[in-house]
Amino acid sequence: MRILLLGVGAVGEAYCSLGVERDPGAQWFEQVVLADYTLDRPLKVQKKLNDKRFVVDQVNAADKEQVVAACKRHNIDLLLNCCPQSLNVSIFDGAFEAGVMYMDLAATLSEKHPADPYNKPGVLLGDYQFNKSGQWQEAGRLAIIAMGIDPGVTDVFAKYAESKLFDELEEIRVRDGANIYVEGYDFAPTFSVWSVIEETLNPCYFWEKDKGWYTGESFAEPEIFEFPEGIGPQEVVSIEHEEVILIPRHVDKGLKKVSYKIALGREFIEVLNTIRKLGLDNPGKINVKGVMVSPRDVVEACVPNPAELGHLMHGKMSVGIWVKGKKDGLNKEIYIYQCEDNQDCMRRYNCQAVSLQTAIGPIIASELLARGIWTGSGVRSPEEFNPEPFLRLMLDYGHPYKIIDMPIK
Amino acid sequence: MRILLLGVGAVGEAYCSLGVERDPGAQWFEQVVLADYTLDRPLKVQKKLNDKRFVVDQVNAADKEQVVAACKRHNIDLLLNCCPQSLNVSIFDGAFEAGVMYMDLAATLSEKHPADPYNKPGVLLGDYQFNKSGQWQEAGRLAIIAMGIDPGVTDVFAKYAESKLFDELEEIRVRDGANIYVEGYDFAPTFSVWSVIEETLNPCYFWEKDKGWYTGESFAEPEIFEFPEGIGPQEVVSIEHEEVILIPRHVDKGLKKVSYKIALGREFIEVLNTIRKLGLDNPGKINVKGVMVSPRDVVEACVPNPAELGHLMHGKMSVGIWVKGKKDGLNKEIYIYQCEDNQDCMRRYNCQAVSLQTAIGPIIASELLARGIWTGSGVRSPEEFNPEPFLRLMLDYGHPYKIIDMPIK
Repeated sequence: MRILLLGVGAVGEAYCSLGVERDPGAQWFEQVVLADYTLDRPLKVQKKLNDKRFVVDQVNAADKEQVVAACKRHNIDLLLNCCPQSLNVSIFDGAFEAGVMYMDLAATLSEKHPADPYNKPGVLLGDYQFNKSGQWQEAGRLAIIAMGIDPGVTDVFAKYAESKLFDELEEIRVRDGANIYVEGYDFAPTFSVWSVIEETLNPCYFWEKDKGWYTGESFAEPEIFEFPEGIGPQEVVSIEHEEVILIPRHVDKGLKKVSYKIALGREFIEVLNTIRKLGLDNPGKINVKGVMVSPRDVVEACVPNPAELGHLMHGKMSVGIWVKGKKDGLNKEIYIYQCEDNQDCMRRYNCQAVSLQTAIGPIIASELLARGIWTGSGVRSPEEFNPEPFLRLMLDYGHPYKIIDMPIK
Repeated sequence: MRILLLGVGAVGEAYCSLGVERDPGAQWFEQVVLADYTLDRPLKVQKKLNDKRFVVDQVNAADKEQVVAACKRHNIDLLLNCCPQSLNVSIFDGAFEAGVMYMDLAATLSEKHPADPYNKPGVLLGDYQFNKSGQWQEAGRLAIIAMGIDPGVTDVFAKYAESKLFDELEEIRVRDGANIYVEGYDFAPTFSVWSVIEETLNPCYFWEKDKGWYTGESFAEPEIFEFPEGIGPQEVVSIEHEEVILIPRHVDKGLKKVSYKIALGREFIEVLNTIRKLGLDNPGKINVKGVMVSPRDVVEACVPNPAELGHLMHGKMSVGIWVKGKKDGLNKEIYIYQCEDNQDCMRRYNCQAVSLQTAIGPIIASELLARGIWTGSGVRSPEEFNPEPFLRLMLDYGHPYKIIDMPIK
């Protein structure tokens, strides 16, 4: 399979490292074009990988015509979009026009409800993409959206819980947390600040069978969740995330409620609130002494680049779903999760844990597509595929999931 | 007197409004050239003032040659610098080259001690300017620096305390505070954010007779100060400010200690700490997706412009010095202050209180220079002039100072 990897950030780099380790010289990972809006990162990653399957190219992902041309130039089978999700539209539409398969790690952006944003949903995450599913289906082509770790692997877990682990589902609570800290920095995010601002400062989402989707304030309903693997108890808060939109669409067995909460830490929440208070979350361009610039881009440029901090990070990251339901007539409450230790990731791949973990979703999905195990057409979410081969490959890749009993009080 | 007003922000506007109210048609306020790096603000203020003495011009204050040319073009007597103090060097040097008098509201910037910034001073506020005093003196020309309300009027108060109110001085504590809030805004500064970041995130300064100048962490030594006029108790914290540098140079009578503390509010302090944590205080230009921009300029562009918020502000601002010493053999402890009520300022001048108050210093000093009451040569601070005519004019302008007994516990 010939892959165009658009956006060679920390996640793109981890994706390549996982592919190389998995299958040196494998046909399904035949060629990967490392493309970004400058050649700096592609060349850096190509040098690190030191493998003839990786070539580089310069593509402005905001320009659909450049995306189409790059797909054609390299005779691409699959376009993997690892750019900030604000660029999804031009890349997704470019893939369609070029006639290639498409995969991304986060869905197209939501829009707030114009009148009542903290109660009612407006445009949902991924609406733009799902609305074009008919076109993709007619053309016999496949797009998989939101195929990272979360969203992505969490959605695969949800489908697996429904199809194999439970007779009846009541509630799915996605719960992410880490005890990662960055040595020597007052403040250092472990993931793209642009994306963190987007998902945390939008209204948060909930779904209930009787009410459908509804929204709340950022950081709503804080609670303590006891993470496994020594991470321990963390305060988790509600933010906008794809799983709340995706899981209810294809997971049923009586499912009544879906929520997403993440451990951000009080300090990070204060920082995010201040960014909003000052208007620095604004993704649009403003005039600063005659120069047009986006305040959110400035914040991202000021903070340390999470792709470069892996060697200073310590701790573990756990991503999973906490499921409540029934099996064989008995109550069942489990946490299905994947956990990465940063030091392990640095040793194995010279990649930091958060981006390595995010890349598990797309690398396994790529292999399943290349080997004809996952097939189909239209615009699809991870719940729409057979979870079992995916979970087996998690073991083969050496990034296993675990299932533990965890009662919901 | 022909005045070049460089920097037509809120303070520049207030300066003109005070001048117009004081003396319609007076010779000492013969012509004022309103100059800024675009004509927007000069034209707006000229229209508001509706007085033939005001003309406009476009000058890039960062370019010394443009400053010199503007002085010559308009046959200027006094250059009043109301720009951000980061531009002081080109303006101050331009005034010298043009052969005009110079006045500003804040001294040239300090530089941290390279090895031990939170204990030892590096380059002091105003060092650049005072180091050129010899040149100015030889040329027989006068520059008055730091002639706003604080620094400025507070320094005049300090000289007055020494020369008229006390036989012996022990300590001078500059204390500023307000109960001003801005209706309908989550966050709105009442003064230039660029300057507030500069003075609050630098090490704070103290002076003691035995130790000389020494520095501390930003916001050091918080304490509660009971402000008069209904403002009430406020937490004040130490920041860098000119008075701590200027007062000890020319006020003696045994003076042992000088400090500066201001009421910023806990929320504002948190915001400033976050700005620093994220590196958004950086005044230098960084590359943001190919555009060179200063993060601090971006913060300033994002927050509401304090010049435009007067109609939404409520409350009072008090600026003064708390003096401890002896008179006629008895202990004496007084607070000498000037207080402005925002609603009064809006009614009288359509200017907000903080900028109006800042403009009291330069307008009275301008009149004293024009009328030949304050004279001299070299680079001087407000303490070096006779405070009595200044204080009398404060009454004439309708912005009186007050003196109250206030014991220091």
